[in-house]
Amino acid sequence: MKSWLPIPASSHFSLKNIPFGIISTASNPRHRPAVALGDHVLDLSAFASSAGFNKLSTDLQSNLGVFEQTTLNDFAALGRPYHRAIRQYLQDIFSENTSHEIKTNTSLQKEALLPIADVTTHLPLSIGDYTDFFAGRNHAFNVGTLFRGPANALQPNYNHLPVAYHGRASSVVVSGTPLRRPWGQALPAPGATEPIFRPCARLDIELEMGMFVCKGNVLGEPVALEDAEDFIFGYVLMNDWSARDIQQWEYVPLGPFNAKNFGTSISPWVVLADALEPFRTEGLKNEAELQSYLKEDRKDNILDIQLEVSITTATGNSTTLTRTSSKNLLWSWSQMLAHHTVAGCNLRSGDLFGSGTISGFDAGTHGSFLEQTQGGKVTIKLEGGEERKFVEDGDTITLTGWAGGVDGELVGFGQCVGQILPAISRK
Amino acid sequence: MKSWLPIPASSHFSLKNIPFGIISTASNPRHRPAVALGDHVLDLSAFASSAGFNKLSTDLQSNLGVFEQTTLNDFAALGRPYHRAIRQYLQDIFSENTSHEIKTNTSLQKEALLPIADVTTHLPLSIGDYTDFFAGRNHAFNVGTLFRGPANALQPNYNHLPVAYHGRASSVVVSGTPLRRPWGQALPAPGATEPIFRPCARLDIELEMGMFVCKGNVLGEPVALEDAEDFIFGYVLMNDWSARDIQQWEYVPLGPFNAKNFGTSISPWVVLADALEPFRTEGLKNEAELQSYLKEDRKDNILDIQLEVSITTATGNSTTLTRTSSKNLLWSWSQMLAHHTVAGCNLRSGDLFGSGTISGFDAGTHGSFLEQTQGGKVTIKLEGGEERKFVEDGDTITLTGWAGGVDGELVGFGQCVGQILPAISRK
Repeated sequence: MKSWLPIPASSHFSLKNIPFGIISTASNPRHRPAVALGDHVLDLSAFASSAGFNKLSTDLQSNLGVFEQTTLNDFAALGRPYHRAIRQYLQDIFSENTSHEIKTNTSLQKEALLPIADVTTHLPLSIGDYTDFFAGRNHAFNVGTLFRGPANALQPNYNHLPVAYHGRASSVVVSGTPLRRPWGQALPAPGATEPIFRPCARLDIELEMGMFVCKGNVLGEPVALEDAEDFIFGYVLMNDWSARDIQQWEYVPLGPFNAKNFGTSISPWVVLADALEPFRTEGLKNEAELQSYLKEDRKDNILDIQLEVSITTATGNSTTLTRTSSKNLLWSWSQMLAHHTVAGCNLRSGDLFGSGTISGFDAGTHGSFLEQTQGGKVTIKLEGGEERKFVEDGDTITLTGWAGGVDGELVGFGQCVGQILPAISRK
Repeated sequence: MKSWLPIPASSHFSLKNIPFGIISTASNPRHRPAVALGDHVLDLSAFASSAGFNKLSTDLQSNLGVFEQTTLNDFAALGRPYHRAIRQYLQDIFSENTSHEIKTNTSLQKEALLPIADVTTHLPLSIGDYTDFFAGRNHAFNVGTLFRGPANALQPNYNHLPVAYHGRASSVVVSGTPLRRPWGQALPAPGATEPIFRPCARLDIELEMGMFVCKGNVLGEPVALEDAEDFIFGYVLMNDWSARDIQQWEYVPLGPFNAKNFGTSISPWVVLADALEPFRTEGLKNEAELQSYLKEDRKDNILDIQLEVSITTATGNSTTLTRTSSKNLLWSWSQMLAHHTVAGCNLRSGDLFGSGTISGFDAGTHGSFLEQTQGGKVTIKLEGGEERKFVEDGDTITLTGWAGGVDGELVGFGQCVGQILPAISRK
């Protein structure tokens, strides 16, 4: 699959990918849909206006108004057959043997094909509700072991259902948005009973995948497991920042709240579900006998995406902290979706699911500092001689993810970047 | 305060109230803002179009486009001084000595003043995020006692911060919307370790107040307690339906999920914060030394709203289950709002807060079946000889709430009604 457009072999945005996002430019501040391709983006609003889609079948052309929107929600809501057709069309016109004028018409190229370095990316969809799952079984085991020992690490319900909680939609931010270290209540020491109020002292990351829902179901009408794929728009990288000391004090009995709602970062380009179909694999074994609504016939129900976490400190030194894969999830996205709706809950286009933290067991495979430092007991050595137990002010955390090992055919997410700024000052 | 419009003395919608909602009618299905007044509503879209606001100050008239919207979000976002001015204007023109033409112009009346029985009400605001607090201390104590005994009833954090969790915004429904009994996983008996999958066997209600946020704050910039009142649009009644058996199995460690997200009912008319100012009172005593960001100078920080719950079974028999007051909350709405944002979380116009279940200690004052039946051990006797431990199929639960004891001057919420339909059938 070769393109007439020069695409660097190492690009995450090969012709096999075609991820969708929302961009603006200095000359046109309007938010509008685009796809990423190598070092360029195709501005879908400009491309549609310039009749770039005039070889698309007529019935599909009637929906091109979705590319005039400021989010991808309306495009997503058209459903997977539509996403598939548009992605296929774009792959065709960028293939080397295309007869589409985009290959040769330099004024159309100038209009619609923009250097990726010149665009600003925004949240790709308006998020109705954000749900964070806890499907990373190794993470659940690692953290459970820290607090309760290995024999009781997983709670009794863990293998029976995809544990989840409702997150905060308003504070999901796009990659590149800095976040302030949160203030909050925490116990000053183990065994203390009176909380103090301070800037978070154990600020952590959570390496997750995010999934956007493309279409909704009616309240009271669950989505069956075998239909769940139809509700999946695509995927992003997610850093679910977590204030561990605040969380520890606040979370009983109703779950995490301020420890999570100060910000969640996602990568800007949504990799379509279809683009990741070739990267399915078998997941972790679940010993529990599953309820019928969670029983999945296909064995290759888990995505295998290579994931990395790196830290860049205020001094500019960068260190890779984590290398792992999304196959460390116990539950598939279809299982999560079936469970989310089984009691009748309605999903809407633009809803966001987080996978839960993705970790292996060994050093260098953990998706959080909490695991990597064993609850703050072990120090992480960084390049340049620095050390960390948790995230410090000025640190930038970068998540990277891609599928496929062959240069020139990578289906990647680019980066999810977030820097922690000092806490606000208070009287 | 007398009106030229006949208003029944027992109406919740006296001239002292002026609650805002969203209506449609058979002849005009467009959703549009209105206020309720006695047995009528004033259609604000029609009233604005007919120059009904032409005596409003010119600068305020420039914002009347908010009454052409399908939700109250834009009106809410204008802030409390604007709500106050509009409410005052409407009180003036419906007062007996008004010189406004609405008093005498029958064609304007026919256009804008509709019998309340002829309108359908809808969700008043588009809800960005829904947060449910746990501020009903007696409820927390009652339920904690059931599970852990009175000595450990309240968790260690309870008196130090307004405990809360993120709820599901998509499934908040307006009064009158029936809900299906949810299916879910539950343990079949105490001590069991393997869950079964069944329709909820312990379907419960939660009597709550809801609060709508009128305007947002910037991510990373907490709202100080002394500014929090400015962010409050108004209040509704809320029934936070709860599947206790599903909740018991799923909620460790991340809180309630499917046990709550199948539906939350709210009353349709938003009673403005200003309308409830006269009904402030002192709340429950909190023995804890509060952190500075939660210390409230004013003593009358809690609203005193009379609340009732009744059940109407499929046979048509109605029984009052609960009589209590919203003064059984430990935390004020300002404290909840200050806590919600203290770590930096951003609020948006239309965000909904639930108070948590409101209960007294004695029989007949409990805001949930769980408390009233002591976890399903005690039977509630209903009119007509029926009995209940939890909600059965076909039962209709009605919440009512009002402030002020004087007929003709009630500031009430009307009703929040919800019927439970049988669970869907499954193969």
